[in-house]
Amino acid sequence: MKLTFSPYTLSLKHAFTIATSSRSTTPVMLATIEHEGIVGYGEASMPPYLGESHESASRFLSKVHIEKYESPFLLERILGDIDSLEPGNHAAKAAVDIALHDWVGKMLDQPWYRIWGLDLNEIPYTSFTIGIDAPKVVRRKTEEAGAYRVLKVKLGGQNDKEMIDAIRDVTDKPIRVDANQGWTDRSAALKIIEWLASKNVELVEQPMPKAQLEDTIWLKERSPLPLVADESAVRLSDITEITDGFHGVNIKLMKCTGMREAHKMILLARSLGLKVMIGCMTETSCAISAAAQLSPLVDWTDLDGAALISNDVFRGATLQDGRMMPSSGSGIGVDKLGT
Amino acid sequence: MKLTFSPYTLSLKHAFTIATSSRSTTPVMLATIEHEGIVGYGEASMPPYLGESHESASRFLSKVHIEKYESPFLLERILGDIDSLEPGNHAAKAAVDIALHDWVGKMLDQPWYRIWGLDLNEIPYTSFTIGIDAPKVVRRKTEEAGAYRVLKVKLGGQNDKEMIDAIRDVTDKPIRVDANQGWTDRSAALKIIEWLASKNVELVEQPMPKAQLEDTIWLKERSPLPLVADESAVRLSDITEITDGFHGVNIKLMKCTGMREAHKMILLARSLGLKVMIGCMTETSCAISAAAQLSPLVDWTDLDGAALISNDVFRGATLQDGRMMPSSGSGIGVDKLGT
Repeated sequence: MKLTFSPYTLSLKHAFTIATSSRSTTPVMLATIEHEGIVGYGEASMPPYLGESHESASRFLSKVHIEKYESPFLLERILGDIDSLEPGNHAAKAAVDIALHDWVGKMLDQPWYRIWGLDLNEIPYTSFTIGIDAPKVVRRKTEEAGAYRVLKVKLGGQNDKEMIDAIRDVTDKPIRVDANQGWTDRSAALKIIEWLASKNVELVEQPMPKAQLEDTIWLKERSPLPLVADESAVRLSDITEITDGFHGVNIKLMKCTGMREAHKMILLARSLGLKVMIGCMTETSCAISAAAQLSPLVDWTDLDGAALISNDVFRGATLQDGRMMPSSGSGIGVDKLGT
Repeated sequence: MKLTFSPYTLSLKHAFTIATSSRSTTPVMLATIEHEGIVGYGEASMPPYLGESHESASRFLSKVHIEKYESPFLLERILGDIDSLEPGNHAAKAAVDIALHDWVGKMLDQPWYRIWGLDLNEIPYTSFTIGIDAPKVVRRKTEEAGAYRVLKVKLGGQNDKEMIDAIRDVTDKPIRVDANQGWTDRSAALKIIEWLASKNVELVEQPMPKAQLEDTIWLKERSPLPLVADESAVRLSDITEITDGFHGVNIKLMKCTGMREAHKMILLARSLGLKVMIGCMTETSCAISAAAQLSPLVDWTDLDGAALISNDVFRGATLQDGRMMPSSGSGIGVDKLGT
């Protein structure tokens, strides 16, 4: 069994602005697992504000000695060992996890949604993200998102109401709001959420900073909209900690080290009565297709990461009638372009 | 897709006595799922004190219209639908669940432990159960259990110390105690548990009645041995309710409707910091082999159900060096005998 990896840089179609930063590229690491003539593909997406980079991923993946395992089927042990090599490196770990899953699914000759016993008819609408920008630009981006049934809007800046009003000038599609920890005063947060509830907004993601869990609990008791944890819930062990502050959790492969832990997080969240979103970073269709395999299990999908880039190198899940549908291919259901 | 089922009666090698009953047979329902030339096997084991019977299982399974689903791969939807047909009927539901899993595993040409990414090296020792009986009989049964590394003893009767002493006359193997809700006074329960802790006992299963959760919480705070929920934790939704009263949970396919929910229960219990046992009823090697697929995920296995009967109709998981090891066969890894 052999692991290879190579750095790649995604070009974003539009500069991407959230409450805390703005950028026009995302570094990713593309990985493969080869064994018995089958190639599994994986990817680490590393937006810079999360601390990983081409350098950190190269260094970490060089420490992964995949050749010592007899079979990719030993997912639980291999991924457990890799996780315990070092803390952090969640995206790099996800690259191996996704590649191993792709390999196993190809060996089983089935896509993972089928191996997990899921039904594609259960996949909910995915959202398309509109970054923080001037009203004129927001209106143009909203019109470009015509194929999507739901929009996601990054708020938490100075012009939250302007953003929503600019979208509502153009469309009445449901909106999911992501505040990215941008609101620090709980009373002000409640006020804006109450206003948002009158604007056909479905939910609010991470309204307040992770450190302000007590304020978020206060907010949950009063919020007319579901609150969904993002930065507050990174891995499996975080889920039990946030049930008092949130109605749901946004699970991302790059946060939680991949498909295996994401699957466990979904089952745990459901068992604790939480709603579940599956989200993404800016990613190629490799990681997006991996996440799409899990999407029949969730309430909301937010898998527009590959739609936001101009240099995808995979073909896989595609937008169909507002839903991000896995291909019929086995494993994670992707083809590498140009190979 | 076609479901068939037929009643069968297991003959127990020894009359089986627990705190609340004694018997020498167990009714089971054998089930098959046939689709595209592949046959999946399942089983419902129905010890009478749990309320199911040949009649109830026939009636329930007659209501399952499996032919309306396009593929056994739709496990989540099919099993969700069947579960919502009626409350109860957990063993009958498990028969369908196991047969569907066997079918899917055969179609994938892999045993389920591999599909779940597990490692057979992680399988812990299984225990062999010694029922309540006279000291002379207890000593003889203990000697018969020579191939097992761990014993399980049913207590909660009038002669608990005599039972343990009779075993300790013959062997110093670790013992797991199952009180089957037999102790109703918490102080007396603590006293006997403290005594058991000096006798190389590993754990105590269900020390007090399910209704006495408050007393069990009191007991957990003081017990020198891990307390494991059995009757107190039947299905997935029970797990979050019992974490204050128990250190672990005994998951049985016949209680929780099968492999799918058992897998979720194990993941949930682990996430909540609980230890996990996988147990059984008296069953053929069909249901035992299904449970064995999950056993790399647990701390303790108690899968002697097929060893306690004299008329098994399957060959599957076998005792190897004290562990109940799945066969290398695909699905649940069984062959029907005489076919």
